[in-house]
Amino acid sequence: MKIALFVEMAPGMRAGECREAYPEGMQNCLKAMLEAAGHRVTLVEQDENGDGAAMAAAVGDADVAYWWGHGLHQKVSDAAADAVVRAVWRGMGLVCLHSSHLSKPFLRLIGTDGTLCWREAGENERLWVVDPAHPIAAGLPPTVEIEREEMYGEPFGIPQPDELVFLGWYKGGEVFRSGCVFRRGRGKVFYFQPGHETYPNYKLPDVRRILLNAAEYLRCPAKAAADAECPCVPPKETL
Amino acid sequence: MKIALFVEMAPGMRAGECREAYPEGMQNCLKAMLEAAGHRVTLVEQDENGDGAAMAAAVGDADVAYWWGHGLHQKVSDAAADAVVRAVWRGMGLVCLHSSHLSKPFLRLIGTDGTLCWREAGENERLWVVDPAHPIAAGLPPTVEIEREEMYGEPFGIPQPDELVFLGWYKGGEVFRSGCVFRRGRGKVFYFQPGHETYPNYKLPDVRRILLNAAEYLRCPAKAAADAECPCVPPKETL
Amino acid sequence: MKIALFVEMAPGMRAGECREAYPEGMQNCLKAMLEAAGHRVTLVEQDENGDGAAMAAAVGDADVAYWWGHGLHQKVSDAAADAVVRAVWRGMGLVCLHSSHLSKPFLRLIGTDGTLCWREAGENERLWVVDPAHPIAAGLPPTVEIEREEMYGEPFGIPQPDELVFLGWYKGGEVFRSGCVFRRGRGKVFYFQPGHETYPNYKLPDVRRILLNAAEYLRCPAKAAADAECPCVPPKETL
Amino acid sequence: MKIALFVEMAPGMRAGECREAYPEGMQNCLKAMLEAAGHRVTLVEQDENGDGAAMAAAVGDADVAYWWGHGLHQKVSDAAADAVVRAVWRGMGLVCLHSSHLSKPFLRLIGTDGTLCWREAGENERLWVVDPAHPIAAGLPPTVEIEREEMYGEPFGIPQPDELVFLGWYKGGEVFRSGCVFRRGRGKVFYFQPGHETYPNYKLPDVRRILLNAAEYLRCPAKAAADAECPCVPPKETL
Repeated sequence: MKIALFVEMAPGMRAGECREAYPEGMQNCLKAMLEAAGHRVTLVEQDENGDGAAMAAAVGDADVAYWWGHGLHQKVSDAAADAVVRAVWRGMGLVCLHSSHLSKPFLRLIGTDGTLCWREAGENERLWVVDPAHPIAAGLPPTVEIEREEMYGEPFGIPQPDELVFLGWYKGGEVFRSGCVFRRGRGKVFYFQPGHETYPNYKLPDVRRILLNAAEYLRCPAKAAADAECPCVPPKETL
Repeated sequence: MKIALFVEMAPGMRAGECREAYPEGMQNCLKAMLEAAGHRVTLVEQDENGDGAAMAAAVGDADVAYWWGHGLHQKVSDAAADAVVRAVWRGMGLVCLHSSHLSKPFLRLIGTDGTLCWREAGENERLWVVDPAHPIAAGLPPTVEIEREEMYGEPFGIPQPDELVFLGWYKGGEVFRSGCVFRRGRGKVFYFQPGHETYPNYKLPDVRRILLNAAEYLRCPAKAAADAECPCVPPKETL
Repeated sequence: MKIALFVEMAPGMRAGECREAYPEGMQNCLKAMLEAAGHRVTLVEQDENGDGAAMAAAVGDADVAYWWGHGLHQKVSDAAADAVVRAVWRGMGLVCLHSSHLSKPFLRLIGTDGTLCWREAGENERLWVVDPAHPIAAGLPPTVEIEREEMYGEPFGIPQPDELVFLGWYKGGEVFRSGCVFRRGRGKVFYFQPGHETYPNYKLPDVRRILLNAAEYLRCPAKAAADAECPCVPPKETL
Repeated sequence: MKIALFVEMAPGMRAGECREAYPEGMQNCLKAMLEAAGHRVTLVEQDENGDGAAMAAAVGDADVAYWWGHGLHQKVSDAAADAVVRAVWRGMGLVCLHSSHLSKPFLRLIGTDGTLCWREAGENERLWVVDPAHPIAAGLPPTVEIEREEMYGEPFGIPQPDELVFLGWYKGGEVFRSGCVFRRGRGKVFYFQPGHETYPNYKLPDVRRILLNAAEYLRCPAKAAADAECPCVPPKETL
């Protein structure tokens, strides 16, 4: 399918720990994974000068979009965020990764503030599959072990998800709704918490399986051709 | 309790059919009803020059806000809409009336496009109570009969409501999720469909009961003092 | 896929108005429709002496089961109802048709009393698609017109459905949540209201499309081989 | 309010570790707590010969019932379980404590199998409040620390709860949806996981606060006088 991949490329993403975790670049790691599964991927790298316009274009005909952003959320223009949101309403799937909990598209789609508590301690996380028959969990063992990850903890400022797939356990004492589906219009949004830029967790086989399952699950077979309208209608003739 | 009441006063609201329906003005009808129930009401009338700033101020310490808007939604500034949204996240209740389905605060809180189909035929509507034990339906008969109302019909562009209280039936052949609660942060949002400006339906005893019940139900006993943050936290000592 | 089809055959089902509506028998109409779509169907006809044991056997390896019952609900043994319920928990889909809202399997799966109001007036019903992107609504127009159907009206004694697909409008003044999905264990349950035995509505193309879509949607790709247990587990080694 | 308190008294409950944890008896600890809050409590102690008939009587006019059972679930007769279920449908609140996840009333109300994994290691549990404005969490700190508790872990065989209040973290590596509300008919069911009989956790101030908050939250102001029926209704006259 057609996939739009948005990755925020702040300067630090190309150096130091990030470079160690992903010598090829996290954005290219994700792109290669999606392409190897047969998808056509449009990668949008956003640096500090970017306003998201390229992503707004890419979502025009994407089946599913992946969004990874962190420190540059406010650089994304309202217009670009709106383009993503409207694409979801028309049926595009959207996977919001890790710190995208504060991205403009995610916040506009969920309607809450997306807050959480966090700690960058590189500690052990364990994802528990709470809905074993959910298509996003297909092929997974009961738990996914992640050796080191940033901690994201409750209370998470989201509405009740329509589907709760994963709960995260952290050695340091926190829990998190780490995998949640929200239905919005014809589209579905999947928030998935792992993916701090300094740990190569998008190379873990089970995490990759989750990301690829998500593409299949989020694809809408009945996308709308245009934005919905509020039509004035005549009375229906009843039989 | 403290209530902020927002009513859009486009020129037509003070003349013609609107004046016939509400000689005292719809805004004053609602205000008097709320005051008679013991509430302290701050009424914000928004004309074509208003940008919602007065409402942004009024929600600062309101327990519950009522919002009635129609043709001037886009005049409300993003900043004013955000102020209402943030007040909800901190615990303020919000009642969105009738054509407020396209108001900025409602759309930002639900995360969808709020579309519907409509017809201004002054036809018979019947509200069915689908959750008879819901506090917003307290004291109501099984149905609320409305002689004439604008038709708002499905599909309604909302996420699955957290609580569905009323379904509307229209003589012309449509149905609608006419009363829905959405939980967002510490606050709750109640969308209630009746209330076209040319029919005096906010004078109907059952409709008034619903509006007053809503104030009680939406009041949050544990409002947050300030916007939530994303705190960095140390590891918890475990026992 | 493998489908188990349960149809209650009270004496009236083979005579009079039922015979006029379905000269071939409603059970055979449904069976032929499912077979024409490529499914392998085990039909279980239950007369007044039946206790559901044949259905309990048929669900053993069914992907999806359809259940149509009316006046003989209490003849179905608790053991047979439990077998159906357990099959759902392991991942079987279950379509509960029309008056199956009071069948033992449906009530045990939803956990409420399934009550509603009704009227056998052969009046016009219109189904509204409220979730146009839902797979069960694939290929449908915005409304499905049914010339004559028994009226089933709110309040419907169900929990909040996980997915609301159809709302029904009746000329006589009622509304109904006519198509609802409930997720239970690894299985999904779809309640679909049309299907009174004296109107040949299972011959309507749109209704047939709904029933066939449901089979696809309810099929679980990850059925459990056996009933779930409550295992005692050792502590997990953390990294 | 009027409260019915069901506690299963297997022989072990009056001796050994249970006696050490609750010298006065766990049942009396709970009763005293509820009475100190001003409630009128009917305590039903069920031993190995009991079939739950006394509880069936006690729920007749109770506002809220608490149920603690463990090894004798199958001794409770179907008729007694049904009486509790019907009382919930009419509006009684039901608090299901700890191992009541496998009690007959809970399973009939949720419609799933209630399975989980467990470990009796007396390990540290931490409850996280995920919905800080929920009335059941009123007055609580962000976490409730429990020094020793039996571990109950995911996947928990429940439907999506209508409200998720607490998530549990266990030192041994598991997580759990430890506090969930399910709406069923006019009643609400609150499942609360802590309360193994050998740890005196019902003496912890925060746990007691949760249990008392639950009574207030679950009380239905609009209980039905009798079981709901499926009435045949005439067409409504439309205006």
